[in-house]
Amino acid sequence: MLVTKQTFSRPEFRFEPANRTIPLRLGYETYGTLSPARDNVILVCQYFTGTSHAAGRYTPTDPLPGWWDALIGPGKAIDTDRWFVVCVDTISNINFHSPTVVTTGPASINPATGREYAMDFPIFTLKDVVRAQRLLLDDLGIRRLRCVLGPSMGGLQAYLWGRFFPDDVDKVVAVVSTPMMRPSCLMVPNQLGMDAIMLDPNWRGGDYYGHEPPTRGLLLAFKILLTETRTDHWAESNFGRRFLDPSFQASPNPFLSFQGRFLVDAEIEKTVVQRMQFFDANSYLYIAKANTLFDLREPGEELPQALAHLKMPVLMIIDESDLMFTREQAEEALPHLPQGRLETYDSRNGHLSCLYETDHFAGRLASFLA
Amino acid sequence: MLVTKQTFSRPEFRFEPANRTIPLRLGYETYGTLSPARDNVILVCQYFTGTSHAAGRYTPTDPLPGWWDALIGPGKAIDTDRWFVVCVDTISNINFHSPTVVTTGPASINPATGREYAMDFPIFTLKDVVRAQRLLLDDLGIRRLRCVLGPSMGGLQAYLWGRFFPDDVDKVVAVVSTPMMRPSCLMVPNQLGMDAIMLDPNWRGGDYYGHEPPTRGLLLAFKILLTETRTDHWAESNFGRRFLDPSFQASPNPFLSFQGRFLVDAEIEKTVVQRMQFFDANSYLYIAKANTLFDLREPGEELPQALAHLKMPVLMIIDESDLMFTREQAEEALPHLPQGRLETYDSRNGHLSCLYETDHFAGRLASFLA
Repeated sequence: MLVTKQTFSRPEFRFEPANRTIPLRLGYETYGTLSPARDNVILVCQYFTGTSHAAGRYTPTDPLPGWWDALIGPGKAIDTDRWFVVCVDTISNINFHSPTVVTTGPASINPATGREYAMDFPIFTLKDVVRAQRLLLDDLGIRRLRCVLGPSMGGLQAYLWGRFFPDDVDKVVAVVSTPMMRPSCLMVPNQLGMDAIMLDPNWRGGDYYGHEPPTRGLLLAFKILLTETRTDHWAESNFGRRFLDPSFQASPNPFLSFQGRFLVDAEIEKTVVQRMQFFDANSYLYIAKANTLFDLREPGEELPQALAHLKMPVLMIIDESDLMFTREQAEEALPHLPQGRLETYDSRNGHLSCLYETDHFAGRLASFLA
Repeated sequence: MLVTKQTFSRPEFRFEPANRTIPLRLGYETYGTLSPARDNVILVCQYFTGTSHAAGRYTPTDPLPGWWDALIGPGKAIDTDRWFVVCVDTISNINFHSPTVVTTGPASINPATGREYAMDFPIFTLKDVVRAQRLLLDDLGIRRLRCVLGPSMGGLQAYLWGRFFPDDVDKVVAVVSTPMMRPSCLMVPNQLGMDAIMLDPNWRGGDYYGHEPPTRGLLLAFKILLTETRTDHWAESNFGRRFLDPSFQASPNPFLSFQGRFLVDAEIEKTVVQRMQFFDANSYLYIAKANTLFDLREPGEELPQALAHLKMPVLMIIDESDLMFTREQAEEALPHLPQGRLETYDSRNGHLSCLYETDHFAGRLASFLA
């Protein structure tokens, strides 16, 4: 499936918490064909470090397809022979330096100053992200969505759609996600990742554009994130206790300097460094901040009241081995959802199974959509 | 129970991995009375950020007693009417600036140079820590131990005693600990904490003595540690999603700056900052490194063979809610221990229950010692 990045622009978009208006541009992609009645639309929302490239390839020789390509395509669980699938970049997409990401964030030029926004970019919430998606769909002439879904932070957005646009959404699926942001998740990966970036002397209060970027702080933030979104089982079965250099292992004194490395650390670092060349550190700060501000409640409301607004069928898919968004959280919310349903699996590999082990839930997702 | 810090010194102590010899001084404490036959001795080993102050008070007005005072004392699970209890500082104790910690570490003066060792301090393992304890007990005329035990990193030391001095130990108890260092635990809290400290520009390659110390890096390391050793349940029941300043809560735009804070973050930070005035960041690096090097195996050996050397009764006590040293790890090791026994409880509050909720296992510990 060959796909193209498209662009949506608004000369003025109001960020709710700051009540500040700036020009906004978002990249998005679509898969499948919009029906003449425009009534076959599914919105897929991206995870924390993802983009709107959810499926397909830009050219036949792309080494990797979009991140949920196993689920989205002709005959797949999200069947593009039937559905018209839309995926939109979040505001302030972390992958700012990727040639296919065109989305406004702190690394964009502020037309009022001619310089990067940096930390003058307005703080936003995931509700702003969802409001921007609503405007894009208006532009496409799409009023109603058959389903909104996404993994992890994509699930947060799906819940927000169900809560704040209940009349526009037939079904919600939150994959390995949560309707509440518990305090432990405020910390890991969000607050601790922010702390790591701001600790790097190269961060310079966010004004690092044109200078050496805060690569080490960003690396630590991503190592914290990757460690939390995997499990002991995953690390043990992939790396064990092996050293990076096998000759270490044979020696009686294997590890005599602070430069020596275990394989698990080196491999996590390698994965991050490969992707990090495209990352903007300030964008990490803004999206992590948006995560900590995730809230289905209106001021003065308790969570059960907020959940009661999601009147459509809501499918929660939980990985029992996920350390972040636990079965316990889902079970706490379930009785308050008028048409809630909980499905679980156990990948033993933790949170990131929502991206890399989609077979665990592809069938159940397809049935729910049918 | 009033107690006194005592001191053990060796003009020459050889660090095994580096094969380097330096003068070593360790603080230690004892509780109870040594029997004339010197056959009523229990060795308690300290956890990562602890000291040898395991029980009692130095003066009647001390605000807090030693860290396992709930377990150690007359009539308690580790009954000082019966047992003579010894607790020794680890080499390179983190609490270096505490007036009662007298132990050699990277902040100590190297007599060869007249300056702090800093990162020239030799890398050591927990086996070195245990070898130093063996020498101290020799000095006290104590050959045989009725039991070696400790929580968390104290349990790692107890396993090492059973493995490398099997003829000197009657029983081993590892409380909320593990006989293996799994790769996920290499990362959190050890490698990520080390990364955080070394990221702080004030760290200066370890040469910060006489300068501003790397307080922010150390703070992040401890925030990572505290987050990993607690649970979602703990954070939710103690802090919920509340903001630090209650006036935030009332506002429709509660959290408009990167300075704003959730209570969970602010309280974890407060706890750390209070204790951190006594901490030496380089000591954190050395002890974290020692943790990553923890290994019961001799070169070329597999773990089951190593465990077979622990011929004495070994009691493993596991908290089901511990994210770090899991029941799964204990169950994997259990069949290989000739006289192993596993007892579990579920505090729901995570790893630190081994210090703060000792009622979960005090009775089972007392029975095992009897």
